[in-house]
Amino acid sequence: MNVELMSVGTELLLGDIVNTNVTYLSRELAHIGINVYKHTTVGDNKERLLQAFHNAFVKSDTVIVTGGLGPTEDDITSECAAAYFGRTSYFNETLWQKIEAYLRKYRKNNVLTANNRKTAYVPEGALLFENRNGTAPGVALEQDGKRIILLPGPPNEMKPMFIQSVKPYLQSLSNQCFVSRYVRFYDIGESLLETKLKHYLDTQKNPTLALYAKTGEVLLRITASASSEEVALELVNHKIAEINQLVGKYIYLIGDETIADSQTELHRVIARELLARELTISVAESITGGYISSLLIENSGISKSFIEGIICYANESKVKTLGVQEATLKRYGAVSEQTAHEMVVGTAKRFNTDVAIATTGIAGPTNDGSTKPVGLVFVAVYYKGEVSVKECQFNGNRNIIRERTAREAFNELRKMLQQQKN
Amino acid sequence: MNVELMSVGTELLLGDIVNTNVTYLSRELAHIGINVYKHTTVGDNKERLLQAFHNAFVKSDTVIVTGGLGPTEDDITSECAAAYFGRTSYFNETLWQKIEAYLRKYRKNNVLTANNRKTAYVPEGALLFENRNGTAPGVALEQDGKRIILLPGPPNEMKPMFIQSVKPYLQSLSNQCFVSRYVRFYDIGESLLETKLKHYLDTQKNPTLALYAKTGEVLLRITASASSEEVALELVNHKIAEINQLVGKYIYLIGDETIADSQTELHRVIARELLARELTISVAESITGGYISSLLIENSGISKSFIEGIICYANESKVKTLGVQEATLKRYGAVSEQTAHEMVVGTAKRFNTDVAIATTGIAGPTNDGSTKPVGLVFVAVYYKGEVSVKECQFNGNRNIIRERTAREAFNELRKMLQQQKN
Repeated sequence: MNVELMSVGTELLLGDIVNTNVTYLSRELAHIGINVYKHTTVGDNKERLLQAFHNAFVKSDTVIVTGGLGPTEDDITSECAAAYFGRTSYFNETLWQKIEAYLRKYRKNNVLTANNRKTAYVPEGALLFENRNGTAPGVALEQDGKRIILLPGPPNEMKPMFIQSVKPYLQSLSNQCFVSRYVRFYDIGESLLETKLKHYLDTQKNPTLALYAKTGEVLLRITASASSEEVALELVNHKIAEINQLVGKYIYLIGDETIADSQTELHRVIARELLARELTISVAESITGGYISSLLIENSGISKSFIEGIICYANESKVKTLGVQEATLKRYGAVSEQTAHEMVVGTAKRFNTDVAIATTGIAGPTNDGSTKPVGLVFVAVYYKGEVSVKECQFNGNRNIIRERTAREAFNELRKMLQQQKN
Repeated sequence: MNVELMSVGTELLLGDIVNTNVTYLSRELAHIGINVYKHTTVGDNKERLLQAFHNAFVKSDTVIVTGGLGPTEDDITSECAAAYFGRTSYFNETLWQKIEAYLRKYRKNNVLTANNRKTAYVPEGALLFENRNGTAPGVALEQDGKRIILLPGPPNEMKPMFIQSVKPYLQSLSNQCFVSRYVRFYDIGESLLETKLKHYLDTQKNPTLALYAKTGEVLLRITASASSEEVALELVNHKIAEINQLVGKYIYLIGDETIADSQTELHRVIARELLARELTISVAESITGGYISSLLIENSGISKSFIEGIICYANESKVKTLGVQEATLKRYGAVSEQTAHEMVVGTAKRFNTDVAIATTGIAGPTNDGSTKPVGLVFVAVYYKGEVSVKECQFNGNRNIIRERTAREAFNELRKMLQQQKN
């Protein structure tokens, strides 16, 4: 099956909303082995929509459309799909009763208007998908080897409808199983990793491999298809074992998580490790200003490990709260290896924790009056008396520099914990 | 000008990343009066990309492409654009020197690989846009009344390049001036605001009005076009004055900022106010875990005002560092008005600041073992001896609850500072 995903709505063309539907559907379809050939977004305009159907069916056999199924005048998707196949629409009495009941139950304050009835008109010969979270039903139309599927635009209606009705309908048309796993890398750039994995990337077939660059890290997705989930998983795991042997030292996580929502998993790896080993942690943040702590406490249950964080942005607070020597600040400056070292030791001591992180750096846009460049950062980690300080030079705006600093700190800590374990 | 936005990347068709570029560009183009006709997303495939150019130029005269400009083998956008116009690409030595310098400066650990050189190949006769945050430059090609603009895929490279080079380039092709201003509302929902502004929304022409709901706040964009910037600005300001009279009490900021990157400007309003009035601030964060501090220090120069932040996630730290009474914690719990009150007073006292913020709450997914519900939050603000504690009940996941808490805290502080001023 070759699918084109079509989104209908002028608000998308104006950039008023982000098109998360198309991401969701692409991912769900990829997981069940359906090839998405193209995404298209068009306005609420009959002529353009008919033209878009025409273009889509040149290369695809299935078009899945989201949006334009509502009760207002500019909702024209259903009408256009019927017209494309030369069918008429009819008023579906059973459907209307359901819609009416839904409106009476959930939209008490709304008066039932004439245009509400519009959603009960459906193309002749259509397969309907129930909408449990709204009024407009989903629609599937098949003709001459072409298939149009219409889904409502609001994600809270579309997603449950997809999972509950559309996915099983599509799966019934195929007999392959798909399994994906994700490998996350740090300390290696995309180009170098690609060079190292060139043989695998060039000869890939099943499983397939895909590399993605994230801010400061790289992600590899490995997907296999087979007649059963077990066989597909075995294919994936076998490939991971091979890759692990080659570039294992850069891998920080092998998991099943999907990647759409999260740029990094480093803080989750750290939180899991701290909790598993019953280690306590404290954090002293200058350049990251609370960002490292806020990532750590994203992890449920972390209060057992996370003792306290300090945002010591001012020099005074570095001295008073963390016990950094005035002489150190004077001689080397707040952004220096020496200050970072004293910060991390001071933090661990003050809060009596097994582990500590400290950061100091110049986030820009201007530097601190010295000759030190914007983006210069020192990351210090502490584990039971041992200290490591790393000097980094990052590029980008304030937020990117802080983001990179946080990841670097988590990665340094990860390596130190790893070492202690081995 | 009629534009088609084209996104290139198999990772988009697989749903691995959300296409925020297309939203950003659509909005930016709408602001300068450029009509976006269609969005298309295609995979990293030469034949499909050429076909997509062909289809796009049937209705549009300009195609803006994001993605596929990188150093790896599947980055084929530049090559395809050149081929579409029948041009060859050449190795640009000056560009390569810049790229090499960039790589040596920011990617010290990376070995320079042969494929890095690929980014220095550009189509003949191309106008180049500098990339300050990466290696691949932007490209504009014009021929036979058709225009192809190529931008890098990573948003942190694409957005600054668009603002700095591409937007002025596009504006130079038109003779209308567009001016937009943004009005930000807090303490009022989107539907109610829409009802109050109905007359203006229904009769809008020039300026145009657009409402956007953000997490916890609402944004109104007012855009006018005219033959000169002065006239357009006057039209906008006149409309703002009318709206201010009607719903002024919900407005927290009238500004020129673009909205793409930031959900809120509350922390910037606070930072500006603190610096202007030479007030010092300290922050004690339990539920927000450093998030409020990290928003505050996004503001350049804030070190003059921001004395220290404490992430007192554990009860022990609330008692030891902030002087919250054990009896208070025992009697009312950590998530209570009383604890929030003692936290904020303790913080202001400990760090001897004019202003303080404290937060405590239940972020979920499970509650704290008491009968208190997930999403219950107490936000305390302090200003020169005066304390105000607000109880809130938020809905959503951990991150949304923390996000809402931070905004509520900034808004409460804003109101308190406002009061003291009047």
